[in-house]
Amino acid sequence: MRLTIKTHAQTEMIDVTALIQQQVVDNGLANGLCMVFVPHTTAAVTINESADPAVREDILMVLNQMVPWKAAYRHMEGNSPAHLKASIIGASETVAVENGRLVLGTWQGIFSVNSTARERGNWTST
Amino acid sequence: MRLTIKTHAQTEMIDVTALIQQQVVDNGLANGLCMVFVPHTTAAVTINESADPAVREDILMVLNQMVPWKAAYRHMEGNSPAHLKASIIGASETVAVENGRLVLGTWQGIFSVNSTARERGNWTST
Amino acid sequence: MRLTIKTHAQTEMIDVTALIQQQVVDNGLANGLCMVFVPHTTAAVTINESADPAVREDILMVLNQMVPWKAAYRHMEGNSPAHLKASIIGASETVAVENGRLVLGTWQGIFSVNSTARERGNWTST
Repeated sequence: MRLTIKTHAQTEMIDVTALIQQQVVDNGLANGLCMVFVPHTTAAVTINESADPAVREDILMVLNQMVPWKAAYRHMEGNSPAHLKASIIGASETVAVENGRLVLGTWQGIFSVNSTARERGNWTST
Repeated sequence: MRLTIKTHAQTEMIDVTALIQQQVVDNGLANGLCMVFVPHTTAAVTINESADPAVREDILMVLNQMVPWKAAYRHMEGNSPAHLKASIIGASETVAVENGRLVLGTWQGIFSVNSTARERGNWTST
Repeated sequence: MRLTIKTHAQTEMIDVTALIQQQVVDNGLANGLCMVFVPHTTAAVTINESADPAVREDILMVLNQMVPWKAAYRHMEGNSPAHLKASIIGASETVAVENGRLVLGTWQGIFSVNSTARERGNWTST
């Protein structure tokens, strides 16, 4: 199953937990593993706190400090920092499903992490 | 299956390889994949060298340098650095199982990585 | 299935997409998940852009800046930075397979990331 996510900022974390849970229900997956994979190279998937949106802002702030926007990058498109963040965070997450529900901790949510404004997430959840 | 891990320090890597291997045996898993997932948002799972404990100390030292303990964090609980490390390291690892044994390299072990003293690991291995 | 990858530099990203795709074909995997796992502790697996080799150079440049080669490392082998990069990037990637083809985005490739010259990748893809 593929999902399309609209992005709104150059660096962004979007909570896709409800979208993925709905896919699990719609596809009748009762027990197993749900693999959430992003087919882009400047976007990633992570699991982190969904309760306080400030956590997302703090994660993006430090990621943007760790990976400098300007450096002696050789890739001419100017989005090397976004490629780096994608590899640091990773292209997928796998979550167990029990009785049709994603098995996540109390505070956990699944997030799309994108880091160029032009990128639009296009999700495969299988 | 859920495992509970006791943590002892604000930043810590705990070798859980034997615990996970025991779960594989106890549940009669002969061949397949073992997914080790942490349901917390300030803890993570990684695979790295289990032979020399100094490797763990070095990993934690650099992680703590990469993610500053003090910055303009907006999340009020004060554990944003821990949330960041969780997303950098990742919430899960998947390991193949052959003939009832985790297929790990000679030097590999599976580690819980936690970064706040108050956090207690609660593991799902399915 | 195990693959052996020859490495040529102290820090290197090697595109193994074609090798993995060939394994999928050779083993008659039509639909399912392909888990690519590296059994080393100073190597990792990532998914990123395969089109422009400059992306790889930029990723390695920033990783080498983020993880200092010289620091107060306690591990005596001198390869602690390589261990760190392994945990930041991660030991495995999982990719869906549909009709015998890895389901990757247009620009995505699967890469071995190694960071000591002496390391030789030895791949398990199951």
